[in-house]
Amino acid sequence: MSARKKVILTGDRPTGPLHVGHYIGSLKNRVELQDTCDQFVMIADVQALTDNYEHPEKVRENILQVAMDYMAVGIDPTKSTILIQSLIPALFELTVYYLNLVTWNRLKHNPTVKQEIVQKGYGESVPAGFMVYPVSQAADITAFKADLVPVGEDQIPMIEQTNEVVRNFNRIYKSEVLVECQAYVPKMARLPGTDGKAKMSKSLGNCIYLSDSPDDVAKKIKGMYTDPGHLRVEDPGKVEGNPVFTYLDAFDPDKEGLEAMKAHYTRGGLGDSIVKKRLLEVLQAFLEPVRKKREELAKDPAQVMQIIQKGTQRAREVAHQTLMDVRKAMRLDY
Amino acid sequence: MSARKKVILTGDRPTGPLHVGHYIGSLKNRVELQDTCDQFVMIADVQALTDNYEHPEKVRENILQVAMDYMAVGIDPTKSTILIQSLIPALFELTVYYLNLVTWNRLKHNPTVKQEIVQKGYGESVPAGFMVYPVSQAADITAFKADLVPVGEDQIPMIEQTNEVVRNFNRIYKSEVLVECQAYVPKMARLPGTDGKAKMSKSLGNCIYLSDSPDDVAKKIKGMYTDPGHLRVEDPGKVEGNPVFTYLDAFDPDKEGLEAMKAHYTRGGLGDSIVKKRLLEVLQAFLEPVRKKREELAKDPAQVMQIIQKGTQRAREVAHQTLMDVRKAMRLDY
Repeated sequence: MSARKKVILTGDRPTGPLHVGHYIGSLKNRVELQDTCDQFVMIADVQALTDNYEHPEKVRENILQVAMDYMAVGIDPTKSTILIQSLIPALFELTVYYLNLVTWNRLKHNPTVKQEIVQKGYGESVPAGFMVYPVSQAADITAFKADLVPVGEDQIPMIEQTNEVVRNFNRIYKSEVLVECQAYVPKMARLPGTDGKAKMSKSLGNCIYLSDSPDDVAKKIKGMYTDPGHLRVEDPGKVEGNPVFTYLDAFDPDKEGLEAMKAHYTRGGLGDSIVKKRLLEVLQAFLEPVRKKREELAKDPAQVMQIIQKGTQRAREVAHQTLMDVRKAMRLDY
Repeated sequence: MSARKKVILTGDRPTGPLHVGHYIGSLKNRVELQDTCDQFVMIADVQALTDNYEHPEKVRENILQVAMDYMAVGIDPTKSTILIQSLIPALFELTVYYLNLVTWNRLKHNPTVKQEIVQKGYGESVPAGFMVYPVSQAADITAFKADLVPVGEDQIPMIEQTNEVVRNFNRIYKSEVLVECQAYVPKMARLPGTDGKAKMSKSLGNCIYLSDSPDDVAKKIKGMYTDPGHLRVEDPGKVEGNPVFTYLDAFDPDKEGLEAMKAHYTRGGLGDSIVKKRLLEVLQAFLEPVRKKREELAKDPAQVMQIIQKGTQRAREVAHQTLMDVRKAMRLDY
């Protein structure tokens, strides 16, 4: 029964340390998938540069941080292939070839990119590298012949863009070299920021990082947004849209106790401080071993880099083989 | 007196055999420059694919043809470095980094590209690869740290685009790694097509190729456009805008004889057939040794490929060194 394992490509832009939102939204999932799939976890420094080209030092510094976050939460480099994007030459070459297979007009109308341009306030001065990053993603995905790409709902157009490239390539070059992929939208909760905003974001200062000290975590939980209508302990409180409960849903292993707490909070008589105390307890229980592992890794950064270099080496070979197949299909095999 | 030789980058898209217009417009110049400059002559297959991605076999086949044309006219691989663009990985990587340094808007308004889009009738469906080819050119030029880039007047905006990338890069990354280049517009005549149209173009069938047989050349000259008002031998004829005379200007070594002929033609009494006979004579005298050399080369195509591979190897090393400097400036030297 040697059916080929499903290949997964996933990863992060190394622009800051990872937080508990990353854990719930993707890292946890990766730890589970690495046992059954051939998983490539990409530290996407080239992609990070498309909107951080003026701050390459930020990208550089975070590569190691992100790698340590990965390993600290249990992404196991003997099971998952952790790689640095910019060290895979085939990805650049594939990007350039694929640019011929996508119209300018199509890129302009990519809904994900359009929305990001507005968010970032680029206006007319959007860098070309940013506009074409879906093509760079197509290179990443196809280079490893990924079957599954875990994404959020908002990233589904990116996967469609990749599959368009795949179909165009195979049609024009009469080949079956490239493989279409599927978006895999995990049924994971998305953690809001500690301020109740929909998304954790470094610039909003509303994140709890995997590398935060116990004191920082305590302070952040203490200041967390709850139900603004829950003024006195005896008032009835809202559970829905209350980030403290959303976090408990994600982290509290005692589901029965949590349901009882929610009922109590809803009918009134349960203070925010009690709920927050419980969250601190479960979050510290989760973060403590992560922190320990991370501290251990941080003692020998050279060894961490060596581990990623090893993953990168494997990834380089896989991507190079795809490039050779692509060049052959394009009759560039001279 | 070991002043660094000026570096020149030049080349052609391998989309068809080279013609006498290429010789007069650029090849001749290269043969002269190779003695005093460090000249890189690029067979630009990646660039050729931007508007021939549906016909990669055409690009493939013409690589060898173009290389033989080069050597047949006297581009000497021991003096000039002849290289194949797609075999230089650094060029793809530089292209991707430079895309971050150019705005989408700027690319859209590149006058050369705008004009080509109209000519090619792309409309809204222009491939992204075509739109960004000025950035790919910036990668080529800077990878070899070219000081001079021979171009036609219409290509000057491309050189400006490259220098913008250079300035942006050096400013943002506080470096002096990249070198601005100068457009070098040779004072060469531009040969019109045999039909009198401004440009020789394969699709118009108005070219005399370096590899044409003597019979083909004779036939093409016989059918050449002259002065349409010169109906009878005794009529006065026009020299200006008469391609037969433009070709003679370019190829006839006997300048005095040519002036006498022009005077005779202008006052009337000199038939087109006499002028064409002279052109055939001088063109055959030029083409004969080229043809001989080319036939010799064609006997051993493997050896020709080996020679280009050697040039490509040298080019790869030079470009790789630039890439390493670029990555260091970008703090990507991990």
